Amino acid sequence: MAKNLTTRGEDYSKWYNELVIQADLAENSGVRGCMVIKPYGYAIWEKMQAELDRMFKETGHQNAYFPIFIPKSYFSKEASHVDGFAKECAVVTHYRLKNAEDGSGIIVDPEAKLEEELIVRPTSETIIWDTYRKWIQSYRDLPLLINQWANVVRWEMRTRLFLRTAEFLWQEGHTAHATEAEAIVEAEQMMHVYADFVENYMAVPVIKGTKTESERFAGALETYCIEALMQDGKALQAGTSHFLGQNFAKAFDVKFAAKDGKQDYVWATSWGVSTRLMGALVMTHSDDNGLVLPPKLAPDQVVIVPIYRSDEQFDAVSEAAKEIQKELRAKGLRVKFDNRDTQKPGWKFNQYELQGVPVRIAIGPKDLENGTFEVARRDTLEKEVMAKNEVVDKVVALMDEIQENLYSRAVNHRTEHTTEVSNYDEFKDVLESKGGFISAHWDGTSETEEQIKNETKATIRCIPFGVDKEEGSCMVTGKPSARRVLFAKAY
Amino acid sequence: MAKNLTTRGEDYSKWYNELVIQADLAENSGVRGCMVIKPYGYAIWEKMQAELDRMFKETGHQNAYFPIFIPKSYFSKEASHVDGFAKECAVVTHYRLKNAEDGSGIIVDPEAKLEEELIVRPTSETIIWDTYRKWIQSYRDLPLLINQWANVVRWEMRTRLFLRTAEFLWQEGHTAHATEAEAIVEAEQMMHVYADFVENYMAVPVIKGTKTESERFAGALETYCIEALMQDGKALQAGTSHFLGQNFAKAFDVKFAAKDGKQDYVWATSWGVSTRLMGALVMTHSDDNGLVLPPKLAPDQVVIVPIYRSDEQFDAVSEAAKEIQKELRAKGLRVKFDNRDTQKPGWKFNQYELQGVPVRIAIGPKDLENGTFEVARRDTLEKEVMAKNEVVDKVVALMDEIQENLYSRAVNHRTEHTTEVSNYDEFKDVLESKGGFISAHWDGTSETEEQIKNETKATIRCIPFGVDKEEGSCMVTGKPSARRVLFAKAY
Repeated sequence: MAKNLTTRGEDYSKWYNELVIQADLAENSGVRGCMVIKPYGYAIWEKMQAELDRMFKETGHQNAYFPIFIPKSYFSKEASHVDGFAKECAVVTHYRLKNAEDGSGIIVDPEAKLEEELIVRPTSETIIWDTYRKWIQSYRDLPLLINQWANVVRWEMRTRLFLRTAEFLWQEGHTAHATEAEAIVEAEQMMHVYADFVENYMAVPVIKGTKTESERFAGALETYCIEALMQDGKALQAGTSHFLGQNFAKAFDVKFAAKDGKQDYVWATSWGVSTRLMGALVMTHSDDNGLVLPPKLAPDQVVIVPIYRSDEQFDAVSEAAKEIQKELRAKGLRVKFDNRDTQKPGWKFNQYELQGVPVRIAIGPKDLENGTFEVARRDTLEKEVMAKNEVVDKVVALMDEIQENLYSRAVNHRTEHTTEVSNYDEFKDVLESKGGFISAHWDGTSETEEQIKNETKATIRCIPFGVDKEEGSCMVTGKPSARRVLFAKAY
Repeated sequence: MAKNLTTRGEDYSKWYNELVIQADLAENSGVRGCMVIKPYGYAIWEKMQAELDRMFKETGHQNAYFPIFIPKSYFSKEASHVDGFAKECAVVTHYRLKNAEDGSGIIVDPEAKLEEELIVRPTSETIIWDTYRKWIQSYRDLPLLINQWANVVRWEMRTRLFLRTAEFLWQEGHTAHATEAEAIVEAEQMMHVYADFVENYMAVPVIKGTKTESERFAGALETYCIEALMQDGKALQAGTSHFLGQNFAKAFDVKFAAKDGKQDYVWATSWGVSTRLMGALVMTHSDDNGLVLPPKLAPDQVVIVPIYRSDEQFDAVSEAAKEIQKELRAKGLRVKFDNRDTQKPGWKFNQYELQGVPVRIAIGPKDLENGTFEVARRDTLEKEVMAKNEVVDKVVALMDEIQENLYSRAVNHRTEHTTEVSNYDEFKDVLESKGGFISAHWDGTSETEEQIKNETKATIRCIPFGVDKEEGSCMVTGKPSARRVLFAKAY
């Protein structure tokens, strides 16, 4: 299986970078920190988008679109928000280029300077809440449940394909409510929607929880999150949903008249997932042979590769291939028949393994003689020769089987890599030797959290949701703790 | 029908602006020239996107995503391209904000100046062809058929919602081919795909043709276009498809090895339609009562409005409404039952008329007694009381009927507003008195074209495609002309 792919054991980080490029998911562009999402990678993202969009609409949300530019003054209105994003903003200052007078080339026209600089959105709370002021007058206008699919820019200094890029694609929900309780229900609901999507479509198990104060979104009163565990024992934040209180309503003066006529500020949430999910997908399931895709998100769920020498054989094999393709498509499967004569079967086998196609069917002249096909599944790499008339049912069943196998493998890996510790030495030891999630007692202060982060690079990933409280004492300070929280090193 | 909507007769331009805002399609944002696309407007755009995306995929194209930023140096590589876009570019010069030392607020950090300025893409030929150099080595990599859905920015000084905005949403196809002939076939194919979509989904008839040299896309050897005629007699360019020759391949050094091993530059096309189509949709079908939507693109094709006084009546009417909703949905229609008690039926009638819902069904207590419903169609404003058991079939049939009626009305309007003229005086006269498309002889020079534009504001919309040649003499210079071309004032 020589694919020039570094193995995970050798260097996990290098394996990831190579895999993303070799499987045709994405590559770096000539623009610092910005990636090109290649057709195969984008096709997976489109499948994710379609499911998420359906889930958002089923929970009553509508899509809209807001400007990519945010005037600097808007951005400054919510104090903690600007603090959180100021250091990584792309700033538009001019609106024209011109030919240099000395003939040296194209330059920015100094006379075309904007009166007020524009920030390329790193997130859209400010421009959206400036708009909501016009949309919301009375309780009749609430709740306002809006989502936006968009590109955003955060000027990251150290970037990695999908995981951390200067520009990325995402969706951002922004909702407005009449009461605090309703806004909190919305923020929690979206955490559950995200968990549902990530577990049931991506086959990636997640822990739901809330962030500590220091890890919250800039401007939020509470940040709900879903945290996944990658194969190398590092955590990845897969989605966040924020309860924003009345912070943005106050900053942008968004009030509504209640049924009794009283004026009050509106309550807000925002929530988002991004192309970062592609990174989580890769790092949860893939192996040393390449990408492994869950059937629900695979652009091609089945690929048929013909094996032949003569034109005559090709015609006979093609006929059988097209027949099975038709039957599988009739069952709703996405099936590709790769009949290119520019590439050999071995090359194709390699390619589809690298690209994670869940099931491969090979058909050759001997199969035609014997009335059999060879069916290979990508998750286990098992091959089976089966009678032609069994293939359709078996392959249809494999879709669920592979989807479930990937999920349960990931759950097992997480279980094996989740450790309860009772003291700080044990914590450091587990972190170093085994990684993964570490469940430990913490005294609830940002100081202790900061100390642990500085000493070990581990952060509190979340305060798990819906888990029983358990009294104990902080592993670092010995102060009382009401419950265990989840630590890990993270992407 | 008092909607505070200016009539088309009073002021067409004002009518358009008011309609777009009142029908909840879009509004201006706090950012100069950038619009907010509101949920109802965005829902129509999503329907357009879905159909176009399907058509692109059926013709073999795949989606991908390229960076929003283009380094200034890339932009400068194709000379006519930079000339065409330099005057309207948003330029990113810095990547960080900070607190001013004098406490005056947030400022751009002068130390975070980019080494090379980045242009927010006005179109993506340059960044994409810089990428294609890596993707294309041999004839096996061709054709490369890619589309991107994206936002782009062109710093327009005078903007109008949907028609001309600083930021707009669009798709841009970028294809690479081994031969000139194949690239031309592709560019022509996409013109036909656009025409198919605009005529059969938007119900907007178009003229296909090519642009004159001076109206071509910056960097193209040929620009194919589709031109529609608005109600006020002005033309609107609804989509363009460009044959780019080898210009971008040469500028970005994209060569391929042919089957015989010879190296040659790749042949290119690009093609796009944008949210501008929303403007064409509004200005083709709508009337003094508001928007009129073709059923194929209407987010709600049918709305059911209950009429009642008592709770008891509401329950009885609701039951009948839900039943008919269910039956119509089973036929594949998008049906909304507006059971809000916060608004009166009259308000709802007005609202759905303003928003162009193709069919409205009203159900009141009398209807229940008589076993009838009132069905109103938006295009003709006709109302009909019909027996309950006829409603489903009738409403299903209305979808096609309305779609076709809108199209044929628009064709008739265009026919009435297309005039052949034989001299320049007649030309100016028709342009002034009647507007519309004017078919006239022209000597083929940019000078004459420029003169006509300066003297009358009319431009050559296109050299119509597939129309017989007809010899004549230029209406301005009297020089020989091989064929008539189509003039109009345009959006």
